[in-house]
Amino acid sequence: MQSVLKFGMVGGGEGSLIGDIHCRAAMFDRKSVIAAGCFSRDAAKSAATGHKLGIAPDRIYSTYEEMAEKEAGREDRIDFVSIVTPNNSHYAIAKTFLQHGFHVVCDKPLTIEQSEAKELERIAERNGLLFCVTYTYSGYPMVKQARELVRHGELGDLITVMAEYPQEWVLNAERASWRMDASQGKSCCVADIGVHIAHTVSYMTGLKIESLCADMQSYGTLMELDNNANILVKYEGGATGVYWCSQVAAGSKNGLKVRLFGTKGSLEWEQERPDELRLSVKGKPLQLLSRGRDALYPGAAAFNRLPGGHPEGLYEAFSNIYSAFCSDVSGLLQGKGADPNADYPRIGEGIDGVRFIDKCLESAHDGSRWVQVAEA
Amino acid sequence: MQSVLKFGMVGGGEGSLIGDIHCRAAMFDRKSVIAAGCFSRDAAKSAATGHKLGIAPDRIYSTYEEMAEKEAGREDRIDFVSIVTPNNSHYAIAKTFLQHGFHVVCDKPLTIEQSEAKELERIAERNGLLFCVTYTYSGYPMVKQARELVRHGELGDLITVMAEYPQEWVLNAERASWRMDASQGKSCCVADIGVHIAHTVSYMTGLKIESLCADMQSYGTLMELDNNANILVKYEGGATGVYWCSQVAAGSKNGLKVRLFGTKGSLEWEQERPDELRLSVKGKPLQLLSRGRDALYPGAAAFNRLPGGHPEGLYEAFSNIYSAFCSDVSGLLQGKGADPNADYPRIGEGIDGVRFIDKCLESAHDGSRWVQVAEA
Amino acid sequence: MQSVLKFGMVGGGEGSLIGDIHCRAAMFDRKSVIAAGCFSRDAAKSAATGHKLGIAPDRIYSTYEEMAEKEAGREDRIDFVSIVTPNNSHYAIAKTFLQHGFHVVCDKPLTIEQSEAKELERIAERNGLLFCVTYTYSGYPMVKQARELVRHGELGDLITVMAEYPQEWVLNAERASWRMDASQGKSCCVADIGVHIAHTVSYMTGLKIESLCADMQSYGTLMELDNNANILVKYEGGATGVYWCSQVAAGSKNGLKVRLFGTKGSLEWEQERPDELRLSVKGKPLQLLSRGRDALYPGAAAFNRLPGGHPEGLYEAFSNIYSAFCSDVSGLLQGKGADPNADYPRIGEGIDGVRFIDKCLESAHDGSRWVQVAEA
Amino acid sequence: MQSVLKFGMVGGGEGSLIGDIHCRAAMFDRKSVIAAGCFSRDAAKSAATGHKLGIAPDRIYSTYEEMAEKEAGREDRIDFVSIVTPNNSHYAIAKTFLQHGFHVVCDKPLTIEQSEAKELERIAERNGLLFCVTYTYSGYPMVKQARELVRHGELGDLITVMAEYPQEWVLNAERASWRMDASQGKSCCVADIGVHIAHTVSYMTGLKIESLCADMQSYGTLMELDNNANILVKYEGGATGVYWCSQVAAGSKNGLKVRLFGTKGSLEWEQERPDELRLSVKGKPLQLLSRGRDALYPGAAAFNRLPGGHPEGLYEAFSNIYSAFCSDVSGLLQGKGADPNADYPRIGEGIDGVRFIDKCLESAHDGSRWVQVAEA
Repeated sequence: MQSVLKFGMVGGGEGSLIGDIHCRAAMFDRKSVIAAGCFSRDAAKSAATGHKLGIAPDRIYSTYEEMAEKEAGREDRIDFVSIVTPNNSHYAIAKTFLQHGFHVVCDKPLTIEQSEAKELERIAERNGLLFCVTYTYSGYPMVKQARELVRHGELGDLITVMAEYPQEWVLNAERASWRMDASQGKSCCVADIGVHIAHTVSYMTGLKIESLCADMQSYGTLMELDNNANILVKYEGGATGVYWCSQVAAGSKNGLKVRLFGTKGSLEWEQERPDELRLSVKGKPLQLLSRGRDALYPGAAAFNRLPGGHPEGLYEAFSNIYSAFCSDVSGLLQGKGADPNADYPRIGEGIDGVRFIDKCLESAHDGSRWVQVAEA
Repeated sequence: MQSVLKFGMVGGGEGSLIGDIHCRAAMFDRKSVIAAGCFSRDAAKSAATGHKLGIAPDRIYSTYEEMAEKEAGREDRIDFVSIVTPNNSHYAIAKTFLQHGFHVVCDKPLTIEQSEAKELERIAERNGLLFCVTYTYSGYPMVKQARELVRHGELGDLITVMAEYPQEWVLNAERASWRMDASQGKSCCVADIGVHIAHTVSYMTGLKIESLCADMQSYGTLMELDNNANILVKYEGGATGVYWCSQVAAGSKNGLKVRLFGTKGSLEWEQERPDELRLSVKGKPLQLLSRGRDALYPGAAAFNRLPGGHPEGLYEAFSNIYSAFCSDVSGLLQGKGADPNADYPRIGEGIDGVRFIDKCLESAHDGSRWVQVAEA
Repeated sequence: MQSVLKFGMVGGGEGSLIGDIHCRAAMFDRKSVIAAGCFSRDAAKSAATGHKLGIAPDRIYSTYEEMAEKEAGREDRIDFVSIVTPNNSHYAIAKTFLQHGFHVVCDKPLTIEQSEAKELERIAERNGLLFCVTYTYSGYPMVKQARELVRHGELGDLITVMAEYPQEWVLNAERASWRMDASQGKSCCVADIGVHIAHTVSYMTGLKIESLCADMQSYGTLMELDNNANILVKYEGGATGVYWCSQVAAGSKNGLKVRLFGTKGSLEWEQERPDELRLSVKGKPLQLLSRGRDALYPGAAAFNRLPGGHPEGLYEAFSNIYSAFCSDVSGLLQGKGADPNADYPRIGEGIDGVRFIDKCLESAHDGSRWVQVAEA
Repeated sequence: MQSVLKFGMVGGGEGSLIGDIHCRAAMFDRKSVIAAGCFSRDAAKSAATGHKLGIAPDRIYSTYEEMAEKEAGREDRIDFVSIVTPNNSHYAIAKTFLQHGFHVVCDKPLTIEQSEAKELERIAERNGLLFCVTYTYSGYPMVKQARELVRHGELGDLITVMAEYPQEWVLNAERASWRMDASQGKSCCVADIGVHIAHTVSYMTGLKIESLCADMQSYGTLMELDNNANILVKYEGGATGVYWCSQVAAGSKNGLKVRLFGTKGSLEWEQERPDELRLSVKGKPLQLLSRGRDALYPGAAAFNRLPGGHPEGLYEAFSNIYSAFCSDVSGLLQGKGADPNADYPRIGEGIDGVRFIDKCLESAHDGSRWVQVAEA
C-alpha cells in the first residue's frame, strides 16, 4: 500500500486561490498531506495560513531558502514541494528545492526564460528528481479520452486544429493587475492562458509545432503586455492550426475549447463542460460521449471518479494530476523506480510552454512574421 | 477560529461510492476529520477501510452499537456521526447515536416509516442535537440562487412547477439490485430519486404539497418495486406541478431538472450543468446566469468557491452541506447556540421526504387517486 | 406529370398569420395555386386580400356558402378548399364544401363537438372526398424519422412518453383574447396546443390513449378557459405518459417537445430545433441525428429539402403536409385512387383530437379523476 | 401597391439546388414571378425545367445570349435576371444582360477576376441598373439585428472578430467535384464559403480589412484547389480577426459562425441556429435574443416573418434578399428612384468578395505573408 506523502508549499498565502486549489488537490486522494510551508514573504501572514492548515509552527517558514534547508535536515522531511508563487519567482525557488533534493510541483508557466527552464530540467535529471508542471486541463478524464481517441487512430490523420481560450477579466479590471505589469514577465495573455492551449493540444495530439505566426495585441490603456493573441500554427507533418487566446473577450469566462479535425473524424472538448466530448466519425451521426456513462479507454477511465451525470470539476481534475504525481513519487521512494508513463505533465512540457511564449513574442514583435519553433 | 471537528462513519466500506463521497465532503473544507468508524458488518472489511483512512485501530468498530457506546465514553469522542448504510437501517443507527448524545448526518431517505422519522426528530430535539439529512442537490450554489430569486419575488407568484429526475441504470441491470428488492423498503424509484425532486422543489420554492396523484410503474421482469413514477401535484395556495422520476429512461444519466414558472418570470436548473441557471423575466430576453461570474444573492454567493467558468461538481455541493452543518455544530460546541438559518437540510425535511414516498404509494396502490398530503 | 391544382380559402383575411402560412405552404411546391376565396365576412376586406393574391374578382366571395355553390358550378372549379377560420366555424364550413363535392383541408382542432367531427367523416367517406387536418408538426422530416425509428423497433417497446408544449403569450396578454373567450369553444390551451401534443405523440408512436387524468387550470383574471394543463396518460398496452401544455409559462415561445423512452432506446425532438433528433440507443453514446446529413428512413427522407446545416422551418413543414395532400388529390383526379399511405393527417386524427379535448375537460371538471378515452 | 415583377433565370436546370432556392425565394413573397429562362446549355433539359415551372415555351431559351436579346425585344419583357450558373460564367452572362438593360441578381462569388467585377459595376452604373449579389446569410433577421447592435454601439468599439465556416463534404467526396477543379476558378474553399465569412462580418460590422495573412491548404489527393484556409486579419482602425473556412472538417455541416467582441459587449450568431443571437453586455448575464420574441431594431424586425419559436430557415432568408431587391426594382420602375438603403447586397460587396479571394491567394502563394487588402 502507498503511504501518505508529506509536502510543503511555497506561496499560497491567504486569498490565494491557486494555492488553495493546489492544497486541496494534493490532499483530495489522501496520497499526500501538507506538512510545511512558506506561504508569504510576510512572516505573520505565512504563520496565519500555516496555522489554518494545521501545520506545526516550526515548519512554517519566512523564506523559501530557510524552508528548503531546514526541511532537508529533518528526518520527517517533506517529500515534495508545491510552488504557487508569481511566475517570475518559479525558477529560483524550484532550483533551490531541487538542489536540496526535493521533488517539485510547479505552476505554469514554468519560468520566464527558456534557459532557466532547461537548467531546472538538468538539475532534476542529475538529482533523479520528479518534476510536475500543473497544466490543469490535462487532468480532465475527457481530455485523456481525446488523447486516446487520437492515439488509437479514431480521427485518422489530423488535418487541422482549432483551439481557443477566451476570458474577459481584463475588460473589467479597473487598471492593469500585476499580470499586466511588464516587470512580472514578458507576456500576459499568452503566458497565462495561451500556454494552456498549446499544452492541451500537444497533450491530446502529440503534434509538434514547426512554425507559427502570432498577432498579439494589447487593447486598452495602461496595458503593458498582451491581452489578446491570434496565432496561426503549422505542425510537423503538415497539419495546421489556429490558436486564439484573449482576456478581453466580453462574456467569456474560462472558455478553453479544442477541436481536432482528422481524415476519419473530429472531436471537440470544452473546458466549461468537461464531462462531455463531441465525437464525429465519418459517415456516422455526431456522438456525445459522457464521462462515467460511455466506455472510455483505460487511460481515461482510470481517472474517472463518479458515475455519469454527476459533475466533476476543476478540483477533481487538479487532484488527478497530483494523484498521478504522488503515485510516481511513492513508487520511487519504494524503490520501484519512476514510471515513465505516469500521467502528469513533466518538466519537458514546461520547457515547451516557455518556448511557445518566446516564439509568439518573437513573431509578434517582428510584424507577425512566421518563425520556426521546432529546434534544429 | 473554528476548530476541526471529529466525526465517525457508519457504513461506507470499500467500494461504497456514497461513503467515499461523504468522507471527502466532510473533510474538504477542513472543518471535520474522520476519527472513528464502523464501515462494514464484516470486521475485516471495516478494519481495512479504517486503516486506509488512517483511523486508529481502537476506533475501528465491528458494530455501530459498540461504536456509539465506546465513543460516548472517550474524552476525545467524535462530535458527530455520518450514516451511509442502506435505507432500512438508518432509523436504528441514528436512534442509537442520538441516544448517546451525538449529532447526526444521515443519507436520504431518512427512514422507511414516518413514525420512525418523527421519533428521531423527538429524540434529537429532546437531546439538543443537530441532525442533517444529505439532500445533495440543495448544496449547489445555483440551487440556492434559485431559492433566493423566488424569495425575492423575481418570478412573481408561482403558477406551475415541472420537475423530473430520469436515470437509466435499471434498464442496464442484469437483474434487480438490492434497491429493487422489496425487503429493503417500500419503494425504489420514488424513495431513491423522487425524494430529491420533492426536496429540491420545496427547498427552492417553499411550496407545500397539498395533494398528489401518483402513477407508479415497475417495468421489466423481477422488478418488485417501482422504477418509474408520473406524479401530479397541487400545492397549498393554488400552484400545480408535475414530477417525473424514472430509472428506466434510456439515455438519461442523472437528469434532475427543475423548472419554476411564475407570473413574472421563470427559471430552470439542471443538475448536469449545475453552474448555470436559466432565468426568464417577463418582457426581457432569456438570461443565462453563471456561477462565479454573475451577481448572486448573498445566500448563494456564500457557497461559491471558484471563479466563473471553472466547473464545480458533486463533491463541492456535498461539501457545502457538510460545511454548513459543521459550522453549526461548532457554534453549538462553542456555546453560541445553533443557528436556525444555517443552510443545510434538517430532519424535518427528512420527515417530509418519507411522507412524500408514503403518499405516492398510497395514491398509486389505490388506482392513482388523489390523496391529501398536507397534514390536517 | 402532376398538374397544378386550384384551391380556395375560407378565412385568412389580412393580418391572419395562419391564413398566410396555409397559402404559402399550399403553393410552395407548385402543386396547387390559389384561385378563389372568401377571406373575411367583411366583403371589402375579402376583396382586398383576394386582390393581393391575384385572384380574379368574380372568384372573391362574401360568404362561404356562395363560394361553395358558385365554385361547384364552374368548369374551372377549385379542387379543394382550405379552412382557416376560428375553430367554432370549421364544422359548418367544412360540411358545406364536402356537400358540394370539394376535398378539404381544415385547421385544427377540427370541430368543437365530437359528433360534428364524426359527421364530417361520414360525409367525406360517402362522397369519396379527401380531408386533411393540418397538424403542423407532423410535417417536419425529423418527426417522420422519429416515427420510422419507432416503427422499426429501434426504441424497443415503449415504456413512457414525456411531451410538453409550453408558451407564454397569455401572460403578456392585456386581457383574454378571443381564444380565452368561452363563447368560442370549451377549451383554450388544450384545444389550441394540447391537441398538438396528443397528435404528435400518436403520429410518432401509434400509441392509443386508454385513460387519462387531467388537471386543468386557468390562471389570471378574466380567463374563462384553461391556460395550463397537467395530464397523466395511460396507453393501451401498458406504457404511460405525461403531457403538459401551458400558455402561461414565462420564457417559453413555442416549446413543443416529445421524448419517447423504450426498452432499447429513447429519442427526443424539440420543435424549436426541428432539424435535430437526439437518439439514445442502449449501450451506445448519445447520437445527434441531423436532417440532411444523417441517413434517414425513406419515409422521412422523402420530405427532406435541403442539405444538412441549412435550416428548414415552419413554412417547409407546413408545405410538406400540403404537398402530400395535393399529390393524393391529384392521384385521385387522375383516376389512380387515393393512396391510403399518403403521409398527411386525416380526418380520423381530427376526431381523435376533439375527443382528447373532451376527455381532458371531463376529467378536469370532475376533480381530475381518471377517465376512459378508448372507445368501448 | 407594388405590382408583381417578372424575372428570368440563367442556370438552375433540374437537379440544381441553388437554382431551385433562387426560384422559390424570388416568388415566396409574391413580388416576382418567373417568366423566362435558360436553365441549361442542353436545350431539352432547359425545356423540361421551364415546363415544370410553367413558363411559356417561347420564353425557354437555349442560350443566354438569345434570351437576353429576345427578352429585350418583348413588350412583356422580364424585369430582372437571376444568374445561378457556375462561377466562371457569371461575368459574361451578367455583362450581356446588363448591356441589354436588365437588372441583375447574381450568385456569389461574383466573378473570377476583380477586373471583371469592376467592369460589371461600371456597366450597371452607367445603365442605371440594380445589381444584387446573393450573400445568403445577410438575409437572416438576426444577422441584421447583429448589425444594428453594432451600429447602435451596444458592443462598444470592436476589439476582435472570430468567424468560421466549416463543412465536411470534400472528405466524403469520392473525388474532387467541379468545385475542386482548377479550370473552374482559382480557389474552392475561400471562393465558395470564405467569401461568406468576409461578407457576413463586413455586413455586421462595417469593418474594412486592412491586411491579411492566409494559410491555405489542399488536403487529400487529386485536390487541385484549397479546401481549408486559416486566415489572420487586421482591420482598419486596429481591430483584428481570425477567419477559418474548411470543407474537410469532419462532422461540420454548414457551420458559419460569427463572434464579435467589443469593449462593451460581445455577440455570437450561428447559421445553424439562425433565430438566436447570444448577446453579452459587460456586467450583465449572458442574454439569448430570440427572433420573433425579443424586441429587435426596426432594420431587423422588418424581416421577421413568424412569431417566436416558429423556426425560419434558409428559404426565408433568401426570400428576404429577393424581397428587398424586388421592392427596390419596383420603386425604380415606378419612378421613385432606387433606395440607397434598401437592404440587399450590392455589386460593391461582390467586388469586395472577389478581392478577398485574390488577396488570400496572393498571401498563401507567397509563404502566407501579410498582404495589404485596403486599396491605396
